[in-house]
Amino acid sequence: MIKAGIVGGTGYTGVELLRLLSRHPGVELRAITSRKEAGMPVAQMFPSLRRHVDLAFTTPEAARLSECDVVFFATPNGVAMNDARALVAAGVRIVDISADFRISDVAEWEKWYKVKHACPELVAEAVYGLCEVNREQVRKARIVANPGCYPTAVQLGLLPLVEAGVVDIGHLIADAKSGVSGAGRKTETNLLFSEASDNFAAYGVAGHRHVPEILQHLSAAAGKRVGITFVPHLTPMIRGMQATLYARITRDADFQGLYEKRYAGEPFIDVLPPGSLPDTRSVRAANMCRMAVHRPYGGDTLVVLSVIDNLVKGASGQAVQNMNIMFGLPETLGLEMVAVVP
Amino acid sequence: MIKAGIVGGTGYTGVELLRLLSRHPGVELRAITSRKEAGMPVAQMFPSLRRHVDLAFTTPEAARLSECDVVFFATPNGVAMNDARALVAAGVRIVDISADFRISDVAEWEKWYKVKHACPELVAEAVYGLCEVNREQVRKARIVANPGCYPTAVQLGLLPLVEAGVVDIGHLIADAKSGVSGAGRKTETNLLFSEASDNFAAYGVAGHRHVPEILQHLSAAAGKRVGITFVPHLTPMIRGMQATLYARITRDADFQGLYEKRYAGEPFIDVLPPGSLPDTRSVRAANMCRMAVHRPYGGDTLVVLSVIDNLVKGASGQAVQNMNIMFGLPETLGLEMVAVVP
Amino acid sequence: MIKAGIVGGTGYTGVELLRLLSRHPGVELRAITSRKEAGMPVAQMFPSLRRHVDLAFTTPEAARLSECDVVFFATPNGVAMNDARALVAAGVRIVDISADFRISDVAEWEKWYKVKHACPELVAEAVYGLCEVNREQVRKARIVANPGCYPTAVQLGLLPLVEAGVVDIGHLIADAKSGVSGAGRKTETNLLFSEASDNFAAYGVAGHRHVPEILQHLSAAAGKRVGITFVPHLTPMIRGMQATLYARITRDADFQGLYEKRYAGEPFIDVLPPGSLPDTRSVRAANMCRMAVHRPYGGDTLVVLSVIDNLVKGASGQAVQNMNIMFGLPETLGLEMVAVVP
Amino acid sequence: MIKAGIVGGTGYTGVELLRLLSRHPGVELRAITSRKEAGMPVAQMFPSLRRHVDLAFTTPEAARLSECDVVFFATPNGVAMNDARALVAAGVRIVDISADFRISDVAEWEKWYKVKHACPELVAEAVYGLCEVNREQVRKARIVANPGCYPTAVQLGLLPLVEAGVVDIGHLIADAKSGVSGAGRKTETNLLFSEASDNFAAYGVAGHRHVPEILQHLSAAAGKRVGITFVPHLTPMIRGMQATLYARITRDADFQGLYEKRYAGEPFIDVLPPGSLPDTRSVRAANMCRMAVHRPYGGDTLVVLSVIDNLVKGASGQAVQNMNIMFGLPETLGLEMVAVVP
Repeated sequence: MIKAGIVGGTGYTGVELLRLLSRHPGVELRAITSRKEAGMPVAQMFPSLRRHVDLAFTTPEAARLSECDVVFFATPNGVAMNDARALVAAGVRIVDISADFRISDVAEWEKWYKVKHACPELVAEAVYGLCEVNREQVRKARIVANPGCYPTAVQLGLLPLVEAGVVDIGHLIADAKSGVSGAGRKTETNLLFSEASDNFAAYGVAGHRHVPEILQHLSAAAGKRVGITFVPHLTPMIRGMQATLYARITRDADFQGLYEKRYAGEPFIDVLPPGSLPDTRSVRAANMCRMAVHRPYGGDTLVVLSVIDNLVKGASGQAVQNMNIMFGLPETLGLEMVAVVP
Repeated sequence: MIKAGIVGGTGYTGVELLRLLSRHPGVELRAITSRKEAGMPVAQMFPSLRRHVDLAFTTPEAARLSECDVVFFATPNGVAMNDARALVAAGVRIVDISADFRISDVAEWEKWYKVKHACPELVAEAVYGLCEVNREQVRKARIVANPGCYPTAVQLGLLPLVEAGVVDIGHLIADAKSGVSGAGRKTETNLLFSEASDNFAAYGVAGHRHVPEILQHLSAAAGKRVGITFVPHLTPMIRGMQATLYARITRDADFQGLYEKRYAGEPFIDVLPPGSLPDTRSVRAANMCRMAVHRPYGGDTLVVLSVIDNLVKGASGQAVQNMNIMFGLPETLGLEMVAVVP
Repeated sequence: MIKAGIVGGTGYTGVELLRLLSRHPGVELRAITSRKEAGMPVAQMFPSLRRHVDLAFTTPEAARLSECDVVFFATPNGVAMNDARALVAAGVRIVDISADFRISDVAEWEKWYKVKHACPELVAEAVYGLCEVNREQVRKARIVANPGCYPTAVQLGLLPLVEAGVVDIGHLIADAKSGVSGAGRKTETNLLFSEASDNFAAYGVAGHRHVPEILQHLSAAAGKRVGITFVPHLTPMIRGMQATLYARITRDADFQGLYEKRYAGEPFIDVLPPGSLPDTRSVRAANMCRMAVHRPYGGDTLVVLSVIDNLVKGASGQAVQNMNIMFGLPETLGLEMVAVVP
Repeated sequence: MIKAGIVGGTGYTGVELLRLLSRHPGVELRAITSRKEAGMPVAQMFPSLRRHVDLAFTTPEAARLSECDVVFFATPNGVAMNDARALVAAGVRIVDISADFRISDVAEWEKWYKVKHACPELVAEAVYGLCEVNREQVRKARIVANPGCYPTAVQLGLLPLVEAGVVDIGHLIADAKSGVSGAGRKTETNLLFSEASDNFAAYGVAGHRHVPEILQHLSAAAGKRVGITFVPHLTPMIRGMQATLYARITRDADFQGLYEKRYAGEPFIDVLPPGSLPDTRSVRAANMCRMAVHRPYGGDTLVVLSVIDNLVKGASGQAVQNMNIMFGLPETLGLEMVAVVP
């Protein structure tokens, strides 16, 4: 059994991780930390976990995380980087669901996250945990930077095109829509039910932290600099994320075939038949990305529809997938759940 | 492996049964029927089932249900009663999620369901599948009448009081609220998103089919005739049901203790600590009933709050629980999932 | 033109008051205060008010409220009582949408609101602004205590029974459901979209501030002490409130006729035909209470269904209705809007 | 008073028209037809209209529409074209909220709407009622083709760019999101609450009837052929529509100034300050289009955000606006309502 610890378990990625790990046959949950809630049983904050999780929140000091095999960071940005050095030194492997290790250019990272990075030397060795790209590197990684939700939906949707070099990669467009849980369990006015319900709006048009993350990794896949216009929108649903992706064709190809071939054998990527229209509920609470490729009116613009559950394939599910790879378990272990419909 | 068939798999109880049975380690799904959709792959109608269910819908004739060990009816009322006799004769055991076998007084049933019963002789032997009451009879039953969603939430919430004889059982009140999926996958105007969203209303105040079902079984538990005022409400959520139950105290007692004792050891009943306020999401997509007992201001009226997921403990989950009992499997097999929060 | 000021305009009752007053033909909006947001144009916080409200928030000092004819308090509890004395002395009339003047027993008020009352002598003269009961007193009132949302829906639904003395007033039951806006524009975790959406739960079962308010005024109507069990529930909709009311009949009567007669001529009370099931959207954004009276199965328990928009008839609309009465305007002026459906 | 009739009043554009016209000071509602519901009081189907609309539905024959000054068609496509000739001959002016007169190329229209056009000669004279473009022609029109909801949001958002010739008009992208009421009051499975709630999906990617409508009128504005990729999405809200528009800059300009100048003086177009992020609730239930222009990272792609209420500026409100223009009334008469927030 893998001994697992969680740092920061009071947010949505934390409770989702608990949902997944508490039923994972290869994992023993050792500790979950929250300085603020130390002493409170986890199942008191989240009654859904009654009879599934017996742990109480503990302080990081009391958690003895260095005795774990793996530690997940389900924390706000800027926490994992402070703890990583000591844990790695103790032989603990890390899956960071926050953004601390996602961008290899530390100066760029510091510009977007507005804080000095605490362990730049570990950024270099961290592996970006988009499993479908970096599976081999993840196996041996000491630190896996779990991708953001938008970057997951956008990159998975664009990778086959970018890798094949068949579209204008300088002018990609990603129109993305996220359920409200993507913003976390933060008490901000715009996330209130009475504000977000029966409402729809774009945000972050002028700049969003996920843009440099997308650009770095797509550029790596392309072998040259990629350009993207990214517009995220807040959608009145709890879970679910759709990226509607637009790319201008530069070289004709069997686009459907391109996608099917690129993702053949991938357990968590489902390329739908031609003409399909994936909906987010088809992946609700499941670790799956479903996508469809369209070429409207046979024109020169491709439209790719990519849906995930932002808390599963876009966060905690992908984190467990990375853990499975890191520890040599079957990649799908504990992740075979069926989406909840309706 | 138990060979299972499903009659009527295009509704919400059907797709929920597929979600549960496709991951159940003791079950082999043999057939799923839909006369109207015969030939269509199940996963085409419900893409959430892609990679989980390979079956296509078949006609009842082609389904060879008599070779199954168990057949579930996830049909509109009035279907199961027509097929039951032949299946039982063939040695197949039945779990009927519809209402055909829930009321032992056939005349009463015919009054409410407005159709002649096709096999009254089997009504008598059918066992009412409220596991927490009839567990022993379910073990040997050939036909289990799976309880309705409202009757499940209401009876579980009232049983300890009614059995103990500590309240005025002639004037019980059940104010119940259901998510819209409780009405089924029917194309009726009042179930449209634009009608049911951001809206709330009572319905069925003048009479609801679940009233005779509740009365029969609560009266059996009480040993005398029970009276209840039942008001259901349509609530703008997909899944979830809450019964707020009011009873006038006739004999003082340790009510919290009464509930804890009645349900001690029950895997799917969770009596919350005093003062708790269960929310429906704490059981979303899980086979669980959570409840809390209140005595506001120490007065003479008890308030019991009982929540379930109408599609799981209120329908398909309870059906699987019944199947587990019927076939001597661990009662919780395939039903250990954690509720989906948020 | 009535010169009107608003204290505390950043919450939901404030913005609703602005929606109503900005189109009211008899009112000139003079000032709206918010110490925290002083200087910010109102329409910057609420873009829906662009082109309708040109005011900026001001400090209370700068607002020169003593020059207004009427001042509305759309503040948290405990603010109006501090400002009332000076305003009344200056000849300004007050409509307090908060709870400061609703309960005449100051000790009782202090127990529930957990603060010392700042001007108990004005509590005595304040008129409880349930227009359908106290219309005459409102005309001359210097201070109108605008009723709470739950008290409005519950009292309007029970008044005909209580006044007529035909039910057991010692054991009334009010099972009430509120949209999330009823909790105000507060950044509390349980009001987040991801918590309140697709979810349903009771709250305040052990005690709610609206209980003493309901009891005082219903007891006055009954001429003797009333007893009530009140259970409020948070419902996943923005606006809307339903009270499902249960009362045991003690004397037979033409209940439908009783309601129609009691509310004959009332512009904002709509007694629906027998058998009706009012939904909250039928009053969304309108100043209206619709209700229906049921006697299920001809038994001895009456069920009354009463719906309002918690922000209109349950708050700001009723405040404008009170203002109309106070200043001798037609009671419906500025309040004739049709409910928004769908 | 303008005598107005409505053909087809049982859908969402019909009930919205009733909401607006019943409070319009210059209109007398004469008749509302529904062959299927003839005889039923309108307020029985829509209780929100009780005390506002006394009419009952009548058959078209009984409605004596030829005595009206104006007749609105709130019908499915293919109805207005059959009645138009006789009404026009009788001197009645028509506002058609359906699509029968929106596309001047009759062959193209017949291809998309899959029916033979009944009065092609009237198509030629019909005026496309996008008031901000064709105000002068609307004044004298006998038939106004009220624009579709998507075409309204998309064209208003793109017009300043297209007219100024500053972007690549051959490759426009419109990523549009609509509330569910945009699909009408149809009992289709995908519009059920349990299907559309907590869900998000694109539809009509392969082809949508609003594309030829957009192309014709934008091409007219451009003076040459326009090309657009249009992807509509179903969003879990009742009302509201956002178009996120992408255009490649071909000539630099003061884009904010361009928009402000183009729409200066327009009562129902609100160009927001730079950096703004309009949300759909800021126009809920109001006749308004709010928009914002962005140039992310100062790059070569413009992003325009355009929001309307699909039932108001996208349908019935714009129809009333057109009527006001046709009859020489102030354009804003009866349309000054404030958006409903929250």
